[in-house]
Amino acid sequence: MKKAFWIGAGLALLLTAAPLNAAEPIEDTVEASLENYILAWNEPEEAKRRELLTDHWTSAGTYTDPSGHAEGLEGLVTHIGGFLDNPQFKGFAIVRTSGIDIHHQSFRFTWEMRNASGQVLTAGIDYGEFDDQGLITKIVGFFGPYPELEK
Amino acid sequence: MKKAFWIGAGLALLLTAAPLNAAEPIEDTVEASLENYILAWNEPEEAKRRELLTDHWTSAGTYTDPSGHAEGLEGLVTHIGGFLDNPQFKGFAIVRTSGIDIHHQSFRFTWEMRNASGQVLTAGIDYGEFDDQGLITKIVGFFGPYPELEK
Repeated sequence: MKKAFWIGAGLALLLTAAPLNAAEPIEDTVEASLENYILAWNEPEEAKRRELLTDHWTSAGTYTDPSGHAEGLEGLVTHIGGFLDNPQFKGFAIVRTSGIDIHHQSFRFTWEMRNASGQVLTAGIDYGEFDDQGLITKIVGFFGPYPELEK
Repeated sequence: MKKAFWIGAGLALLLTAAPLNAAEPIEDTVEASLENYILAWNEPEEAKRRELLTDHWTSAGTYTDPSGHAEGLEGLVTHIGGFLDNPQFKGFAIVRTSGIDIHHQSFRFTWEMRNASGQVLTAGIDYGEFDDQGLITKIVGFFGPYPELEK
């Protein structure tokens, strides 16, 4: 009985332990996922965007910002396409402007939409979450500064 | 057949529409919920904290910050108790320092932990989510400034 318990406990530990690549801390996997996420925002070819997000963004992952909501990896591929096709944003790229602050299974970072001469159209922050494998399951973006405190 | 459809559609609309108090925009309900949430962080009596959070924080709502994770309304009542009992934070209060930025069912705001003479021990941001009734379902806090961008 006792022996069966320890074998069971050992097995449970084995099954719940560590991400796919046990040699790499999960933070590194999350940073790699977000690296590809930012590249996808600047990739005009739909097939390449899909490739950049695959293995880094869960198939059911959701993206939300003040301008819209995208369901799943395919939803995000399409949403970014809409952004890149918008003549208003021609010549502007999404650039991460802070390191990635991670705790538990959440993160935040800051970003800017800017062009080659450094003009910033929008600055914002992304909040997000990732799964046990370091794949992104959710990003919620916010634009501009925080609203002022009500008096 | 058509009539039954329209009655069905009308009923579905009625059942999914608007928060409890239909006269109040959901943003106002969320702001009231967060008002009580901040009051709870400064309430040393456990029963009063519970009262402040009831009807504003879902029973399964989760709270997470770099120092810990609390499950459910009861978990948060206990977590705040631990903070208020910590002699390190004696005399410090949690104060919201920005307006509440809301879109879809998410929000963010900034806060400080400060004492009566204005000394700030920690500043941070809260990201959160709310349900169809404007009750908080999740808050994830982050402490201090964003990490610097890696070179």
